[in-house]
This record gives sequence, C-alpha cells and structure tokens, in this order.
Amino acid sequence: MTLTTADPVTDGPGAGALLDRTRTAVDPQIRSTVETLPGQVRRVAMYHFGWEDADGSPITGQAGKAIRPALVLAAARALGARETQAVKAAAAVELAHNFTLLHDDIVDEDPTRRHRPTAWTVFGVPDALMAGDAMNALALRLLAEDPHPAAAAATARLAACVIELCAGQQADCAFESRDPRAVSLDECLAMATAKTGALLGCSCALGALYAGAGEEEVAALDAFGREAGLAFQLIDDLIGIWGDPDRTGKPAGADLVARKKSLPVVAALTSGTPAGEELAELYAREVLDERAVRAAADAVERAGGRDWAQAQAADRMGRAVEHLARAVPDLAAAEDLLALAEFVTRRTS
Amino acid sequence: MTLTTADPVTDGPGAGALLDRTRTAVDPQIRSTVETLPGQVRRVAMYHFGWEDADGSPITGQAGKAIRPALVLAAARALGARETQAVKAAAAVELAHNFTLLHDDIVDEDPTRRHRPTAWTVFGVPDALMAGDAMNALALRLLAEDPHPAAAAATARLAACVIELCAGQQADCAFESRDPRAVSLDECLAMATAKTGALLGCSCALGALYAGAGEEEVAALDAFGREAGLAFQLIDDLIGIWGDPDRTGKPAGADLVARKKSLPVVAALTSGTPAGEELAELYAREVLDERAVRAAADAVERAGGRDWAQAQAADRMGRAVEHLARAVPDLAAAEDLLALAEFVTRRTS
Repeated sequence: MTLTTADPVTDGPGAGALLDRTRTAVDPQIRSTVETLPGQVRRVAMYHFGWEDADGSPITGQAGKAIRPALVLAAARALGARETQAVKAAAAVELAHNFTLLHDDIVDEDPTRRHRPTAWTVFGVPDALMAGDAMNALALRLLAEDPHPAAAAATARLAACVIELCAGQQADCAFESRDPRAVSLDECLAMATAKTGALLGCSCALGALYAGAGEEEVAALDAFGREAGLAFQLIDDLIGIWGDPDRTGKPAGADLVARKKSLPVVAALTSGTPAGEELAELYAREVLDERAVRAAADAVERAGGRDWAQAQAADRMGRAVEHLARAVPDLAAAEDLLALAEFVTRRTS
Repeated sequence: MTLTTADPVTDGPGAGALLDRTRTAVDPQIRSTVETLPGQVRRVAMYHFGWEDADGSPITGQAGKAIRPALVLAAARALGARETQAVKAAAAVELAHNFTLLHDDIVDEDPTRRHRPTAWTVFGVPDALMAGDAMNALALRLLAEDPHPAAAAATARLAACVIELCAGQQADCAFESRDPRAVSLDECLAMATAKTGALLGCSCALGALYAGAGEEEVAALDAFGREAGLAFQLIDDLIGIWGDPDRTGKPAGADLVARKKSLPVVAALTSGTPAGEELAELYAREVLDERAVRAAADAVERAGGRDWAQAQAADRMGRAVEHLARAVPDLAAAEDLLALAEFVTRRTS
C-alpha cells in the first residue's frame, strides 16, 4: 500500500542537495535565533527542533526538510539576489512554520512528530503553547530587526500569512467535527490553500522581496508557491493514507484512523459513488480497527479519491509553473524552484 | 474583606476620563483591524472583545480598561507628539494584550473574563487558540504596515515583549505545580515583571518611539512602565484575594481557590511565620471550601503578605516616577502618565 514512487532516486540529487545546502546555510541562523529565547520557552523550542533531548542534553538534530527556507533562497536566487542576503527571511519562515507545528500538535493531540514524542506530550500543553506563541513573535521579530530594505514589507507579509495559516488550521479542526458529507471539496481546497499553500507562497514572495523584486513579480512568486503548496498538500494527504510507516514515522493510514477529512477522502465522500457511501459508513464508526482502515483506504481508491488527488497535484504544478514563468521568463534561472516543486510532489515521506 | 480603597472616587475623574478618551480614540482602530481577520477567527475575536455575542449578533461592548493603549498615548504626549500619531501603536499593544488573555484563559482553564464566559468555553480550545495566534500576528502586522518612521523599531520591540510575556506566563504555570515553599519571592517578582511589567513598559516605550524619542528616553519610559506594571500586578494580586466579587466578576478569593502562588501568597509562604505555615497546610489540601478560603486570606494577612504587597506597590511606584523624571524632567508634561500609574495602583476591580 505504499506509494509507488517510493524510490530514493526521487529525493535527489537536485532537490536533496538543495535542501542539504539550505540547512547548512539557514540552520545556524535559526538556532542562534531560537537560543535568544528565555528559559523554559527556549528548552521547549530546542527540543522541538531536535537539538536537545527532553532533559536538555544536546542531540544530533532530526529537523524538518527545510522546504520553506529552500524556497526563500531559491526564489531570491531566481530573481538575481545572492542567497546570503535572504538567510534571515528563510529562517523566519521556518520559525513561523514550526510555531504552527507546535500548536497544531496540541490541537490535533498528535503524539509524535519527526519520529519523536511531540513537545506537548513531553512538557505539557501550557509550555508547548507558550513556546509556540514565543516562536510566532520570534519569527516576526527576526524580520523586523533586519536592516534589509525589504524587511518591513516582509514582516507585514509573513504576519498576514500567519493569520491565514491560523484560519486554515481552524477550518481544518472545524471540518473534523462536521458530518463527513457536509464538507464540500471547494471548502476543503480553500482550507488547504490557507493551511499549506499560504506559507509556501509567502516563502517564495519573501525571497522575491529580498531580491528587490517589484509587486508583480512578488505576486507571481506567491502564486507559484501557493499552487505548489496545494500540490504538496495533496501528496501529503496521499501519504497520510498510503505512506510507508517506516518512512513517515506515523502508523499506516494515520489520517484514516483519525478520520481526517483530507482532500482524497473528501473527493471520495462527495463522489456520489457506492465506494463513497462505504467510506461514509466506515467514517461514522466509533473506532476504526486495522481491517477497517484498509477497507477505508480501498474505498477512497475505488471512489476515485486517489486518482483525483494525483491528477489535481499535477494540475496545480502546471499552474505553478505558469505563474513562475511570468516572473522568471528564462526558466533556467528558476531551476532550483522547479526542482523543489517537483520534489514536494514526488516525495514519499 | 473587600479592599478598603473601594471608592468610586479613585476611578476618576483624571484617569477615568483618560481611559474613556483612549477608548474613543483607539477602539475604532482596534475594531477595524480585528474586522480584517478571516472567518471564524474573526468571530472568536469579536466575541472576546465584547462586540459580538456567541451567535455573532452585535452587542454593546464591555471591553477592557484600555490601560495599555492609554499609556501609549500618554507617553507619546509626554514626549511632545500628537496622540493621533500613536493610535496604531496603542491598538497594537491592546491586540497583543488580548492575544495573551485568550491563551492564558485556555492554559488557566478560566471560565469567565469580563463577566462573560471565556472564548475557549464558548468556541472550544482549537478556535480560541487559533484566534489568539492570529491576534498575535495581527498586532505585529498592524505595526509592520504602519508607514510611521518608528514602526520597524516598534514592531521589533513589541515582538520582543511578547516573547517575554510568554516566558512569564510559562513561569507562572510552572509555579502552580511546584511545592508552595519552593518558589522564592525573587522568582515570583521576576515572573510578574515578565508577565505584566513587560507589556506596560513596552506600551510606554512605543509611545516614546512614536514621539521620535531617543534611546535613553525610550529606555526610561520602558522602566517607568515596568515598575508601574509591577505595582499593578501587586494590586491585582491583592484584588485576587480581597477583591469585591461584584466588582471583579470573579468569586471571592478566586486566586486562593485556584491556589495561585501570587505575590502576597508567596510573601506569606516564605515569611517564616506560623501564619505562613498555616497557609502552606491549607494550600496542600485537595480542595479549599469557602471557610478554608477565608482562613487562607486571613493567614496571608497575619503572615504579613498583604502589608508587604501594599508597601512593595508603593515602592515600585516611587521607582517608576524616578525613571519617568529622567525622560520628562518637567513632570507636569507627564501628568497623564502619573494619573494612569496612580489609577492602576488604587483601582479596586
């Protein structure tokens, strides 16, 4: 049941090397910024980033994939800037992303993140909540203190994006408590755009701003990131159903166990097919055992949810490239942005 | 058992009129800013500010006292600016303050705020948490988008302050789970400085920044606000024990029922007196009934906690005025700041 693209070759060398280079360029900035946090708030943040154990001992990090900072740097380069100029912007989007992870894990009651217990399970909800709040402010502070001429516009843009992320996460939570068939696919796509597309778009826009780009280029880069972000979410949702537990660090069919109304699930539920009905009945059950989870995955597939999500992801990528071409007519200059976009739509964990 | 200063005369006319004028000047800015929030996040915020009912119908607001925005405007005036110049800064600190209230109510599991059910009890924890996150970003966005030349410095300063507030709230929560006698008075004062003093200091500093003041004046105004803030917290803690429920909207001895380690309580617990021992024994109980709450209040008083807090509040006010005099040698120009500082240390609810 694992994704058929589960081939290490798809993770590199283009995007893989780019992500490695991004971590080398941006991690020291993220870390030195996090280290300015006071007391226990810092400890929770250091744990969350995988730099410290629960007792505060240093450990070798198992941080995230750094896709957002990579987009910032790649967008800055595509528009003619040196990537060192945009390192603070790259660190800021990763801090903002991680603040949302800290809070989403609380709200979703998720026990694990990046193969480790989530911060709220280790430090308690109050500490994880406050660490997230502090990291939200820290991301914006890093930009506001940057002497770069685009810093003020970047701060305002990231703050606006955070507001959109919150609205997206709120909508996501609200969907979970609604009747499975009462959520439309359009609502679900709007939610995914806010929850995932917004920050990927903002990452690209910040790279463009830091390269001194004009309004139209910034808007085009934002649109590129948003569409790529939606493709990313579609793939993420497919992984939430068919991902390999050894690679994702989550149990098989995790999103089905949690009865998440992810995009392929909503596509199936609103398909008007008998398989969609089967899925609705399974989702109405109190608990889904392993067998029911397999049956639900099968129902999503037979109702066309899997194919729809894969086709949508490809379609969104097409639109993303069109937007990119408006800002960077010579797409060779945007090679890294394209590699990253391709990476997120082909990744397997 | 109500505070002996429970006299309406202390609420005005100086400070009372100032707060009314502040609300008239700043509320429209806060409201129009909150109205830019998307969907359900906006609804939670509108409810929290007392502008809408739980079902979204408009109601007549019962907003907060607007002490922080009043400090921004008064600081700006004291340093020679017109108060209209600092309205956005005033709105931003009130938004930041209210984001912390939304989250503190979740963490403290408080059922009421300003005589109404708290947002998390009405909309659930996820909605209240996301509304708070969005309001945190909204406060900083309002400053970052302001074309005023001090806006970037103000954004960075407010973000730094939010981080301090989070650390203060985290320390406050951590104290609650520690052995009553293991919390020192110094730790407790540091926590109160972070949790309350920081934002009052930041409010004054932002007013100074918006008046074009230099670094030393901004620092002096910050120190004034911090000391006044600590006095404010001491009085708030006294109200938490001896406040009149009809005025506070909270049950009598609310902080004792919650076994809060507020400043007068910690002063009593660390007093080395027999009454301090009595209090420690009462705090070790599973539940405090009405009679035990009265006994605990009495023990705080006999252990000297009440007198200590009142003397500290007066001492802090003295220091506050010294700081203020450094930035505004002609204290007549700082009349409103002094009236606000006096108001917060004499208020009764």
